[in-house]
Amino acid sequence: MTPYPKAIRSLIEILTALPGIGPKTAERLALFLARQPKTTVERFVKALDEASQSLVSCAVCGNIAEASPCDICGDKRRDLKILCVVAYPQDLAVIERTGEFHGRYHVLGGVLNPIEGITPDQLRIAELVNRLKNDGITEVILATNPDLEGESTALYLARLLKPLGVRVTRLAKGLPMGADLEYADDVTLTSSIRGRQEV
Amino acid sequence: MTPYPKAIRSLIEILTALPGIGPKTAERLALFLARQPKTTVERFVKALDEASQSLVSCAVCGNIAEASPCDICGDKRRDLKILCVVAYPQDLAVIERTGEFHGRYHVLGGVLNPIEGITPDQLRIAELVNRLKNDGITEVILATNPDLEGESTALYLARLLKPLGVRVTRLAKGLPMGADLEYADDVTLTSSIRGRQEV
Repeated sequence: MTPYPKAIRSLIEILTALPGIGPKTAERLALFLARQPKTTVERFVKALDEASQSLVSCAVCGNIAEASPCDICGDKRRDLKILCVVAYPQDLAVIERTGEFHGRYHVLGGVLNPIEGITPDQLRIAELVNRLKNDGITEVILATNPDLEGESTALYLARLLKPLGVRVTRLAKGLPMGADLEYADDVTLTSSIRGRQEV
Repeated sequence: MTPYPKAIRSLIEILTALPGIGPKTAERLALFLARQPKTTVERFVKALDEASQSLVSCAVCGNIAEASPCDICGDKRRDLKILCVVAYPQDLAVIERTGEFHGRYHVLGGVLNPIEGITPDQLRIAELVNRLKNDGITEVILATNPDLEGESTALYLARLLKPLGVRVTRLAKGLPMGADLEYADDVTLTSSIRGRQEV
């Protein structure tokens, strides 16, 4: 009753531990990887090794980077007065891709979530407060997701940061491009009415 | 506009090439893997290396295995007269887990699919015919999926194998355990009526 060789079972076990990979996907991936030519697997192993060896967490913003401080934190042309607070490096990447934001970032490493036991001391909040006290920052954009955890994290941070005398803003909520009013939910629609802008 | 370090971008590119992994999942996985402690990544690299080094395709049945012939093909206690034909090693594993089948297997390596250009010569069909001619097999169970490609592969094989004088069967189709008649599709219901059994 052990239909898979040990090497496949080990690989399945490791793959199942990855985020978003269920047992069936892990099984499919393990069998796919085992079928690949040696060169393909070697390329993968090399990329994994490099990612593990060469990457660090930027001591300033907490982003994943090749050096600390990272390229963004070290870039003198960026606006040093404005800080965008995000939950994860992915969120930073998405905002950076728009080319619309020219300040610097602060990566929290997650959002507050009492159910999963994520409390303020597990996020890079003390580091954020320190930056605000020392770096001459005038505005903080709270760019956490517009969901339950993201909103409560933003609310928590707003209360904590406003007394430090900085402007605290939040990404605009409203209808996404291409949306259909008929199918918009009430909360989004309310947000987009309240945030209506002159044309 | 290159928000990710090169090591992350290489990893994302390799992960995107895996089956069932889209660009967003690849991004999430790459950032997750880069965040892991060195020991975790080393375990993963070791498992990948082992899978790549130690596994072979069984020359008899085509299953992925530690040796050729594999444990199942080499097991003298199994019924040598009955052969179960499956598309992929995963399917073999699923059937083997039931403990219900005591014959041996033949892994095709896929199913016929004219749209994706999968023709009979790309599957292990010639090997299957050779086994039937030489190994004293009396029954072949065609255990491909009950979907379009699986059914047409089974039909193709049935036409090819019956003239060799073997009994050719197909896994029973019918209602799955726990199903609700009200929501059963017509084809399944028709199959389960035609295949009804005495109680």
